[in-house]
Amino acid sequence: MNPATPHHAGIPPIPDYPATPTVGDFAEHELIATITDIAPSARNGDDAAVIDLPNPAARSVITTDTLVCGRHFRHDFSTAYEVGHKAVVQNVADIVAMGATPQALLLALALPRTLPIAWITDFASGIAAMLDHYAIELVGGDITISDTLVIGVTATGTITGPKPPLTVTGARAGQHLLASGAIGHSAAGLDLLSHFGRNHIPPALAPLVTHHCAPRPAPGRGAVARATGASAMTDNSDGLIRDLTVIATRSGITIELYPDALQPDPLLQHAATLLGKDPQTWTLHGGEDHTLLAVSPTEQTHGFRVIGKTLPKGQHPILLNGKPPASTGGWDSIRSTSHTQTPHR
Amino acid sequence: MNPATPHHAGIPPIPDYPATPTVGDFAEHELIATITDIAPSARNGDDAAVIDLPNPAARSVITTDTLVCGRHFRHDFSTAYEVGHKAVVQNVADIVAMGATPQALLLALALPRTLPIAWITDFASGIAAMLDHYAIELVGGDITISDTLVIGVTATGTITGPKPPLTVTGARAGQHLLASGAIGHSAAGLDLLSHFGRNHIPPALAPLVTHHCAPRPAPGRGAVARATGASAMTDNSDGLIRDLTVIATRSGITIELYPDALQPDPLLQHAATLLGKDPQTWTLHGGEDHTLLAVSPTEQTHGFRVIGKTLPKGQHPILLNGKPPASTGGWDSIRSTSHTQTPHR
Repeated sequence: MNPATPHHAGIPPIPDYPATPTVGDFAEHELIATITDIAPSARNGDDAAVIDLPNPAARSVITTDTLVCGRHFRHDFSTAYEVGHKAVVQNVADIVAMGATPQALLLALALPRTLPIAWITDFASGIAAMLDHYAIELVGGDITISDTLVIGVTATGTITGPKPPLTVTGARAGQHLLASGAIGHSAAGLDLLSHFGRNHIPPALAPLVTHHCAPRPAPGRGAVARATGASAMTDNSDGLIRDLTVIATRSGITIELYPDALQPDPLLQHAATLLGKDPQTWTLHGGEDHTLLAVSPTEQTHGFRVIGKTLPKGQHPILLNGKPPASTGGWDSIRSTSHTQTPHR
Repeated sequence: MNPATPHHAGIPPIPDYPATPTVGDFAEHELIATITDIAPSARNGDDAAVIDLPNPAARSVITTDTLVCGRHFRHDFSTAYEVGHKAVVQNVADIVAMGATPQALLLALALPRTLPIAWITDFASGIAAMLDHYAIELVGGDITISDTLVIGVTATGTITGPKPPLTVTGARAGQHLLASGAIGHSAAGLDLLSHFGRNHIPPALAPLVTHHCAPRPAPGRGAVARATGASAMTDNSDGLIRDLTVIATRSGITIELYPDALQPDPLLQHAATLLGKDPQTWTLHGGEDHTLLAVSPTEQTHGFRVIGKTLPKGQHPILLNGKPPASTGGWDSIRSTSHTQTPHR
């Protein structure tokens, strides 16, 4: 006999939330109501949610992702609102990166009994804010008890029209590499948090921390890239070099990055000077910006800038200044250590 | 400052699996390959999976569910194969209960570093067996590290034709209550496991334990119920009375159960005698059989039997022998204690 021996250590107190009541003080339907009151949907509440498609030729697009407390977020770095906000963004980014239009969200929560209920309501408010941002709906989910706080998010979207979805296998040689948002800001924000703590961030650098804790990609960019002819797309979640290496190897091409386009901006330079770090580590290996990276024949695409080009397959998947980047770095879901230590994710 | 302090206690050894190698010995793409080698799909491997619908009028149906080790399963009660098997069944049951046809699965795993890799491959084989059973595909997912083993499953399905999906709000008075499989077997199996341990189950009662660890509902029954006119359906996951109470209250009716149709069968009687328990506790409050419960004007529906009828809304949502059942019992995801103790889930 070898009975399961769950931990019952509970969780340390969380700053800024009243310690009681906690999850363990509520029944399942009451806990569900704390979330659905903030993010209501007529499609929620049955065994499964039925999703109508916008037109007869539409296809459904689906992705799922998990956030583990202490690994993907920390209570002393991020508020519950920010955890909810980011949980939506990082999942919807994967829908958007297919060139699809986001549509619905499901939320599977495994919660410690000792988690303050105020954390849940703040978390739900962060979820709801991003539901508004993307014009999508929370249509279902599941709540259960666990010693580790684990947040599972499933996002769906739709893709219409005759053009194919934008996969990591669709890149061709002789095209442009486009990017739609900041690169390296999230990793710099995490290093600032590790160094200064949340309450002592230099005010001028607060945008980097916000970019880490609550990234806010402009909505609609993925569909724009698809409309203007992009054939491959991903978001930089695990680090620029790592994510582009996936596109290059899966598509059978080489990607050449333009060094000028990857120069650290003043915010990154300021943070690097203060922390005594090389800002290129953030830019090349940081990840978690959820910035779209697209390969397209079209240089001019609304909201995107050119950061490189694609070549026929060469000796290396990625070139920077004529040679492969020094380290492939980046985030590995299994091998990388948690948010509490470098390397970044 | 209040840094997250994850547990690093690891997990106790799991019977029948070699202790090494473990999850921590592999990179993310290697771990993903241990699963996709066993359950391959051309749609897997991108940011999100694109799902074509079978015809232009089809709607998409989606559900998600979480299994936490020590709460929803125990290593000394269930093999990894059975955990994988049941993870698929309990999610697909929610798709089937809408009258939909299952289509695709996503798997989000949060794994302790110390989990033997042999557990993962056996788990994936159990998943794959049920993918075959339902003729569906594993199209995506996510793997990360957690001190608690948490399995998140998302299932999708499609619903076609002009009839509405079968919701918990669709029941009307003056109809039949139908059931499609065993009721109470899973709870009896769990009690047998708790009493005898997995290796000392009386052979004649092994089917009850199998029903608990690896339930196998006949596929296609949900679509049959919808085709023959059922208007409401659910599966008994939390206990017969609890699940029927949801239909009765949400639909605004009363459900009268036929006592003769709920008599314990010889297997339940045998187990009850051996354990000195009242078999009606299993039947009325056990749950986890994932048996379909449908309200339909049609008495004769392939694979279903009549176990009650619906009445205009009365004083109580459920009647048995003319009065409400003694206890509403059943499983509450938050309040109920884990699988290691009664009450059942």
